[in-house]
Amino acid sequence: MAIADAIGDLSSLLGERVSRSKPVLEAHGRSETHFPLTPPDAVVWPDNTQEVAHIMRICAAHDCPVIGWGAGTSLEGQGLAVRGGVVVDFSRMNAVLDIRQADMDVTVQPGVTREALNETLRATGLFFPVDPGANASIGGMAMTRASGTTTVRYGTMRDNVIGLEVVLADGRIIETGSRARKSAAGYDLTGLMVGSEGTLGLVTRLTLRLHGLPEAVHAGICAFPDMGSAVAAVTETIQMGLPAARLEFVDAATARAFNAYAGARMRDAPHLLVEFHGSTAGAAEDAERFAEIAEDHGALGLEMASRAEDRRALWAMRHNAYYAILNARPGARALVTDICVPISALPEAVEATQRDISASSIPGPIAGHVGDGNFHAILLVDPNDPGELEEAKRLSHRMTERALALGGTCTGEHGVGMGKLTFMQAEHGDGWAVMSTIKRALDPQNLLNPGKLVASN
Amino acid sequence: MAIADAIGDLSSLLGERVSRSKPVLEAHGRSETHFPLTPPDAVVWPDNTQEVAHIMRICAAHDCPVIGWGAGTSLEGQGLAVRGGVVVDFSRMNAVLDIRQADMDVTVQPGVTREALNETLRATGLFFPVDPGANASIGGMAMTRASGTTTVRYGTMRDNVIGLEVVLADGRIIETGSRARKSAAGYDLTGLMVGSEGTLGLVTRLTLRLHGLPEAVHAGICAFPDMGSAVAAVTETIQMGLPAARLEFVDAATARAFNAYAGARMRDAPHLLVEFHGSTAGAAEDAERFAEIAEDHGALGLEMASRAEDRRALWAMRHNAYYAILNARPGARALVTDICVPISALPEAVEATQRDISASSIPGPIAGHVGDGNFHAILLVDPNDPGELEEAKRLSHRMTERALALGGTCTGEHGVGMGKLTFMQAEHGDGWAVMSTIKRALDPQNLLNPGKLVASN
Repeated sequence: MAIADAIGDLSSLLGERVSRSKPVLEAHGRSETHFPLTPPDAVVWPDNTQEVAHIMRICAAHDCPVIGWGAGTSLEGQGLAVRGGVVVDFSRMNAVLDIRQADMDVTVQPGVTREALNETLRATGLFFPVDPGANASIGGMAMTRASGTTTVRYGTMRDNVIGLEVVLADGRIIETGSRARKSAAGYDLTGLMVGSEGTLGLVTRLTLRLHGLPEAVHAGICAFPDMGSAVAAVTETIQMGLPAARLEFVDAATARAFNAYAGARMRDAPHLLVEFHGSTAGAAEDAERFAEIAEDHGALGLEMASRAEDRRALWAMRHNAYYAILNARPGARALVTDICVPISALPEAVEATQRDISASSIPGPIAGHVGDGNFHAILLVDPNDPGELEEAKRLSHRMTERALALGGTCTGEHGVGMGKLTFMQAEHGDGWAVMSTIKRALDPQNLLNPGKLVASN
Repeated sequence: MAIADAIGDLSSLLGERVSRSKPVLEAHGRSETHFPLTPPDAVVWPDNTQEVAHIMRICAAHDCPVIGWGAGTSLEGQGLAVRGGVVVDFSRMNAVLDIRQADMDVTVQPGVTREALNETLRATGLFFPVDPGANASIGGMAMTRASGTTTVRYGTMRDNVIGLEVVLADGRIIETGSRARKSAAGYDLTGLMVGSEGTLGLVTRLTLRLHGLPEAVHAGICAFPDMGSAVAAVTETIQMGLPAARLEFVDAATARAFNAYAGARMRDAPHLLVEFHGSTAGAAEDAERFAEIAEDHGALGLEMASRAEDRRALWAMRHNAYYAILNARPGARALVTDICVPISALPEAVEATQRDISASSIPGPIAGHVGDGNFHAILLVDPNDPGELEEAKRLSHRMTERALALGGTCTGEHGVGMGKLTFMQAEHGDGWAVMSTIKRALDPQNLLNPGKLVASN
């Protein structure tokens, strides 16, 4: 059998760094969301790029699917071996290779997590800003084009990855990009790889843009009488060009979940969580201007988190929103929506979503990076009631159709994986066929993460 | 004959909007730099996307090359019909279709120039920042991934194009991107098309990010005793995180050219030209901090252009640097280098370049967007002396080899065209072969701008 032959060759190459044990396979067959357990045939742990290339050549010789694995925090089933094959776990390739302070960039291996990277950077006065909440691996974040709470100011992974080393489907190793701040030297292969979810290659090294730690940080939280006024405050903040570093919305259901899970004492109301970065004078001025906007929209007092530990607690709570919400319905699994719309369409998109969910039979707290026009409904379904998953999918469909009609996208930051495949034709039309054409050209055997992002073949 | 048959069919479709007149063909066969006159077989002027698709299908049926044409300001021969065929001139498709102030974006046709666009935007308080100097078309700017004086603050075309409509080689029309501020929905086809120089499709519509006009603008110019101290002031400015909106270097030879061509009264010395955007207090503070840095590096006084007309004159002079330099050697043609290096490597790259040019037999004033690590030597050659072009190519090679060794790129903003083809293998290795693979997959007949960017086949 082809896959078994591949695993035999991989064992010769890697020895004990190949596993077929059931607990290991199951740990690499789990998703954070509603997808069923899908264990691969084997898991391997390479130590370096040459080994990854060798693994790739072995798998190509035996027509064996290859799926990259970072921290396993993706939400659309990106890491699941739906056609069997070998999961390449990058956890041993987690070094921070080269910090260049003068150029404000860093080269890392894919397995390093964003928290470990920022811990390593602590003494430099620089930080890597992209923050999806979960302590994801940098490689995984690049492959899903992750973003998160700070994207409104610092951009997505697309904006912060400046170069990659990639092992292609045939085992060739390429380097994309350069360390220059810009280049016009041909197709943007870095940009093509970022967000490709492991379907075009395995990333073995990344060069990232770093940012200076701000002189001053002002963060705060405020409740609003209703969702409409909170969202209106967001759109006004963005349209005025106020440079928020974070601008987050949670609805009343999420606030209640924070109270229950994280011991918060929030009102039973929608809230905005904000942060401003800048000079001492500048950040304070921005925070004041935001306070005025919030007040104009009926905010019930802006509470500042003035101490660093208060800010950490605030964002830790926000980062754990997903787990707090899951906790609100014990035993539930989640289908997480992820639409992103132009700012002007945000009020309509959020309010229509809440109306839909209220009229449905399942709970669906809403939280999101509204400064980008991106928000999530976490639809909580009973895994033993297939009708509930169907209901959640119906709600998700309606949200996405609305987002596309408003000029938006089906996924702002979670990626396609398997969960959003169903929307790709509607969003991209023949553009989706172009993606398949590119995929076939670079991976004619369909070895790399088959069943994800592009149309199945 | 295949091309003649295509032109026959195009004439049936477009009537008088097809030309084979010699002056028209020659006007579309000229380059701004040293490439020889290369007239196409015909020029066509489509009025809308459907016509572009129809043109593409006709040309595909007859194996006739198709080259897009904007304002003809590219510097690497991107618009030249080196294998004959039809130039598609987008000058009639120059409408600003939809300005959405609340979302700070705009949809335009490719033929609109950046100056015309900003004129149309004037009343909105918004502007499109990318500024390569020349009054290029927006479509052409996207296709070369243009950048320029303001990129240090506002990014390149890659950062400011959020969606495209593209006619593919087979006549299909796709839309890439969305109007959402971010998306993780599959491969970044917008990013793949931006910088593809018309080799993957013809762009028929673009959606662009706009920026708010700053409350305050501070611009100025200062001379330095030598090139090293000017460049050191730049690297310190960038490394301190001072948010310059423009940060430009010109050497003494360029200053002399400005004096001769534009009636400037600059010292015979290297200069920096700077601009800061921000709030009234913020921009002034930034300008002051820059003045301190410049002084620390021996600047001979910072002269502020405090009135709007003074700023316009300053940047008009900078924008015309290329023509001022050409004027310094009457009858000369230029080979323009365009390397971009990490900021920390900028002093070494600039100084070694000047040493090389001083030791050569041809003049080569240096100017550039040093805030990005990008600068140009404009190598002036006698078109009747083939030895001089060879000498210029030799200098360009040495600069590029040095840039690559320093982690940089052969072209920061001018693109590949024909002029930088020779460096692509060294810069990208097998990555260049990947570009060819993508090109063949999307344009198997090699109809779209053949002979540019990818390896010839």
